[in-house]
Amino acid sequence: MRVLIEIEYDGTNYCGWQRQKNGLSVQAVLADALSRITGECITLHGSGRTDAGVHALGQCAHFDTDTKIPVVKIPFAVNTLLPRSIRVYSAREVTARFNARFDAEAKTYVYKMYSSPHSSPTREKGYAHIVETLNVNNMRLAAEHIIGTHDFKCFQAAGSYVKDTVRTIQSLDIGANGNDVVIEITGSGFLYNMVRIIAGTLFYVGIGKLQASDIPAIIDSKDRKSAGKTMPPCGLYLKKVYYKF
Amino acid sequence: MRVLIEIEYDGTNYCGWQRQKNGLSVQAVLADALSRITGECITLHGSGRTDAGVHALGQCAHFDTDTKIPVVKIPFAVNTLLPRSIRVYSAREVTARFNARFDAEAKTYVYKMYSSPHSSPTREKGYAHIVETLNVNNMRLAAEHIIGTHDFKCFQAAGSYVKDTVRTIQSLDIGANGNDVVIEITGSGFLYNMVRIIAGTLFYVGIGKLQASDIPAIIDSKDRKSAGKTMPPCGLYLKKVYYKF
Repeated sequence: MRVLIEIEYDGTNYCGWQRQKNGLSVQAVLADALSRITGECITLHGSGRTDAGVHALGQCAHFDTDTKIPVVKIPFAVNTLLPRSIRVYSAREVTARFNARFDAEAKTYVYKMYSSPHSSPTREKGYAHIVETLNVNNMRLAAEHIIGTHDFKCFQAAGSYVKDTVRTIQSLDIGANGNDVVIEITGSGFLYNMVRIIAGTLFYVGIGKLQASDIPAIIDSKDRKSAGKTMPPCGLYLKKVYYKF
Repeated sequence: MRVLIEIEYDGTNYCGWQRQKNGLSVQAVLADALSRITGECITLHGSGRTDAGVHALGQCAHFDTDTKIPVVKIPFAVNTLLPRSIRVYSAREVTARFNARFDAEAKTYVYKMYSSPHSSPTREKGYAHIVETLNVNNMRLAAEHIIGTHDFKCFQAAGSYVKDTVRTIQSLDIGANGNDVVIEITGSGFLYNMVRIIAGTLFYVGIGKLQASDIPAIIDSKDRKSAGKTMPPCGLYLKKVYYKF
């Protein structure tokens, strides 16, 4: 049977989702634990990569198995073998044609930052630290220009070679609570580093280095250099992957 | 001059606020850093202790110094010498009679827990993990019975020898967001382990092991054994200490 699992992880100490030659990946640790509980050699297919240091609240992956472990018991079985930084919290059987990557219809990411002259010990590893004060209203005005279907080449990491850079952003909300600012973005697909570059562009708007009204021209320029900086990975979370069943 | 500082810390790897013979305390690390920047032997007087593993968003402490460092620069100076798990985020001069412990008029604590069959990697160290489902409405009903001035001996750790166990709880709010439940409690003073025992009693109400209507009899009993369990330290935060200036 083919099984789809949902995974939460603290990405701090991993080289990212994807198996790497030099470094410990979430995929490798998880595939190893699944192989041990099933007694099979499990190949794990994720919904997509997350970079080194990026977290997930709802990464998804599928794998094939002949295990006799009931599918709903798989999270409990595999979690006993996983480090506390990785947990599988759901498993369901899917059809043999299902693919965690190609069937993903949309994803939601969250980017967390806080604004303070001093770093915050209780926000270490889970937030980006901003020294400047953020104007959240201006960030929200800028976000309005990003929502929709655009050629987002300006928000793609330099050196990427994806040809079709048109994507659709369905929602882009900015929540504020004291000094904490949380960006939540849902889209049909994301280019490499796109969320971190959008977060960095909104950050630039928040500190007045860019204006909200600059965003359309930035998108039109298709030039990475016109957008904001790439924010650090520690503030980024893959929150949810959406599938049609 | 006498200086009052506000401190945030991740208490995970400390034996608590108070200097101990066996173990690294926040107080010792902080006093050492302050001594190094001032060139004096600084004695630090906290608003009160926090236990091993308990965090602070707003612990307060005072100390005396003849330093020529401008008081507003003290956080920046001392933070360069502190581990990232401790940060001083404000400093102000106070009168020579001010005492961080005895002048504290009230304190706010936060207790964070989440309810899930599986532990949550991104909530490690900052939340207590509850396997059971919580009925938050019942917890709120129970909280109503705790607010006010009562003899809270039932919520004091066994083996404590404080004679006057009457305290006033000014507010006790319970926020819920998905599986996260956050208790925020403000009072004139707290007995040893009182917040963790109140959190444990509300937890028992949340899972139906106690009823909200049981609370008055528990308080009247003055018996620690009638209340709920002591919740783990990792979910507890000293949020704010209130002074009249």
